Amino acid sequence: MPTINDIADKLGISKGTVSKALNGADDVSETLRKKVLETAVEIGYARNRARKNTANRLCVIVENLHHEDPGDFGYDIVMGFKKLAVPAGWDVDVVAVTEDQQKDISYDAFMLSREYKGAFILGMSLLDPWMEELKTARTPAVLYDNYIPENPRVGYIGVDNPEAFMMTIGHLNELGHSQIGYLGGDMDSFISRKRHNAFLDAMDAYGLAVSQNRVGCSYFISECTQKFLPRLLSSQVTAIVCGTDLLAQAVIVACMDMGYRIPEDISIVGFDDAPFAAYTSPGLTTIRQNQEALGNCGFYALHSLINQTYIGTLLLRAELITRGSTGKVRRGKLPAPRKLPV
Amino acid sequence: MPTINDIADKLGISKGTVSKALNGADDVSETLRKKVLETAVEIGYARNRARKNTANRLCVIVENLHHEDPGDFGYDIVMGFKKLAVPAGWDVDVVAVTEDQQKDISYDAFMLSREYKGAFILGMSLLDPWMEELKTARTPAVLYDNYIPENPRVGYIGVDNPEAFMMTIGHLNELGHSQIGYLGGDMDSFISRKRHNAFLDAMDAYGLAVSQNRVGCSYFISECTQKFLPRLLSSQVTAIVCGTDLLAQAVIVACMDMGYRIPEDISIVGFDDAPFAAYTSPGLTTIRQNQEALGNCGFYALHSLINQTYIGTLLLRAELITRGSTGKVRRGKLPAPRKLPV
Repeated sequence: MPTINDIADKLGISKGTVSKALNGADDVSETLRKKVLETAVEIGYARNRARKNTANRLCVIVENLHHEDPGDFGYDIVMGFKKLAVPAGWDVDVVAVTEDQQKDISYDAFMLSREYKGAFILGMSLLDPWMEELKTARTPAVLYDNYIPENPRVGYIGVDNPEAFMMTIGHLNELGHSQIGYLGGDMDSFISRKRHNAFLDAMDAYGLAVSQNRVGCSYFISECTQKFLPRLLSSQVTAIVCGTDLLAQAVIVACMDMGYRIPEDISIVGFDDAPFAAYTSPGLTTIRQNQEALGNCGFYALHSLINQTYIGTLLLRAELITRGSTGKVRRGKLPAPRKLPV
Repeated sequence: MPTINDIADKLGISKGTVSKALNGADDVSETLRKKVLETAVEIGYARNRARKNTANRLCVIVENLHHEDPGDFGYDIVMGFKKLAVPAGWDVDVVAVTEDQQKDISYDAFMLSREYKGAFILGMSLLDPWMEELKTARTPAVLYDNYIPENPRVGYIGVDNPEAFMMTIGHLNELGHSQIGYLGGDMDSFISRKRHNAFLDAMDAYGLAVSQNRVGCSYFISECTQKFLPRLLSSQVTAIVCGTDLLAQAVIVACMDMGYRIPEDISIVGFDDAPFAAYTSPGLTTIRQNQEALGNCGFYALHSLINQTYIGTLLLRAELITRGSTGKVRRGKLPAPRKLPV
C-alpha cells in the first residue's frame, strides 16, 4: 500500500508538504497541490485514515443536465439517489463539473482531493475529458446513460433502450405503420448512438426497411426540424420516432405549422416522458424513464462497486406511454406542405 | 381489488370453500384447489392479509442446477441471495421444481398457493413450461441467465457475456491467434445462445473470420468432443473458446489424448471459473462468474421488483482469469492426431 512517504520520495519534497497538499493547506501552491494529487493517483495512494466528517462522502457529478428544480429532468434522479444514500449514512454533494474543470484535474485526483468514495455521474458527452479517464479510473463511478467497457470500477445505469424501441416499433406496427422515420440527437452522445442503433435493430426485428433519407441525427433541434424533417416527410413516412420528448415536441409543432394533422397524417413518438409530455397537444406517446428509480439504482450500483460487487450494467424496464400523438396509419400520400417549416 | 367473493362467484362455490382451498385445507380436493388457484390468478386476486409467519416469504426455485454442496455451481448463488434476504427479514425457501410440476400448476398459482412474494429462479431451459408463463406472470421473479422481454415483473441477472467474449477474444488476439473456434451448449438454453452470439460478435469486432466448421454447439459434451472437435482441429484452429469450464476441461483431455499439447498446439478458454478450473492441467483460462455477487444481485433485483422498481437487466462485469491453457499462437500447421478421440 503506497504511503505519503512514497509520494514525497517520488517528488523529492518533504512528507509534511505532501500532507499539507493533500489536505488543501493554504501555504501550498495550486501547482504543487495538483502535482501531489496526480502523483498520489499514479502510485495508487489511498487515504487510510479519513478525516473527521469525511468518512462517508459521495458526490453526484452533473455536467450539462438540468437538475435544480422539480420540473428539471435530473431533479428526481438526484433525489432518488439521495433518498437511499442519506439514510444509509452517506453525505452527498451535488457538484457541477465543466469541461474546463475536467481538463484542469483528473477524475481520480478530483475524487481524492475531495475525499469522495464514489461518484454518480450524470450528463457527460463522449467528448468530456473525464470520459477517457474513466476507462482506467480507480475511484468507483456509476454513469447514467454512459458505458465504459472493461473497467470494473465503473458501472452504467439507464433504461433498456433496445426494449424501448422494440415496444415503440411494435406499437406503430400494430397501428399499421411500416414507413417509419427517426430523428435523434448527435453522435457525440453515447445515448444518442444507442437509441439510433436501437431504432435500426427494432425496425430490422419487425422486418421493416430503413432508408438513409428517413433518418436524421443532430445536436441541434432546429437542424432536425428544418433539414431532416422535410426530407422524412417527402419520403412519405407515416410515423416519426424521436430520440427525446423535446425533439418530438418541436417536430409536432413544425408538422402542424406545415398544415399536417397529428396523428391523422403523421404519428409522432418521443422518449423520456418529460413532465410536459402529457400536456402537449396532442399528448405525446413516449417511453417513460422513471427518474427516481434511476436515482435509486444509481445509488445501489455505486454502493455495490464500493463493496467490490462489480455491477457493469443495470437497466430499468422501458414503459411505453401511449397518448394522442400516435394513431392508425394514414391512407394515401401525404399532400405537399401548406408552407415550409421555419 | 378482486376478493374471495369474486372467486366464489366465478366458480359458483361458497366463499368458505374458496378460503379453504386457498389455505390448503384437507377437505378440499386437489382438483378444486387448483381450479380456485388458477381462477384467483386469472382475476388478479392477491391476499391482502398475510397469515402469521407468511408475511415475508421468498423462494429460490432451482431446476437442473446443482446447489446443495459448497463445490456446486449454484451453492454460492443461493448463499449470496440468502445472505442479503434473511437479515432483511425475509424467509427464504429453496424449492426444486421439475418440468412435471411446472405442467401441473402455473407459476403464479404456485406462488399464490405457497404465499411467496417473489422468486429467484435458477437453471431453467427455454423449454421449461414456466418460461412461457413468465412472459405474462404477475408475481415478481428474477431469473439467473434467462431474459423475458417486456414483462416488467420479471428481471434478468447474470454476467456480461458480450464483454466476457470481447475480453476472451482480445486476450487470444494479443497472443497472436486469429483462427479461433467455438464449442458451446445447446440452443434450447438462453445463455448458450447468448454466448454463441457473443462469440460471433466479438470475432466480428476484432475483424476475425468465423466459418461454420469452426463452431459447434450441443447439449452433449461427447458430441462436442467427438463430432465437432475433430472438425475444428482439421480446420487448423489455434485456439478454442468453450461455453463452459466443464466442456473446456473435456476438450483439453480430448486434445491431449490425441497427442496435442496445451497451450503449445492449441489454446483453450473456458467460462465460469468453476472450482476445478484452477486445478486442471494446465490451469484453465476462463471467465469468472462471482456466484455470491450474483446471488446478492438476485436479491436486490427481486427486492426492487417487489417495490415496483422494474429492473429488467442487471449484469456483473466479466473478469478474465488467465492461466496456463492459453499461450502464444503456434507456428505452422497442426500435425495429424496421434489417435482419434474417444
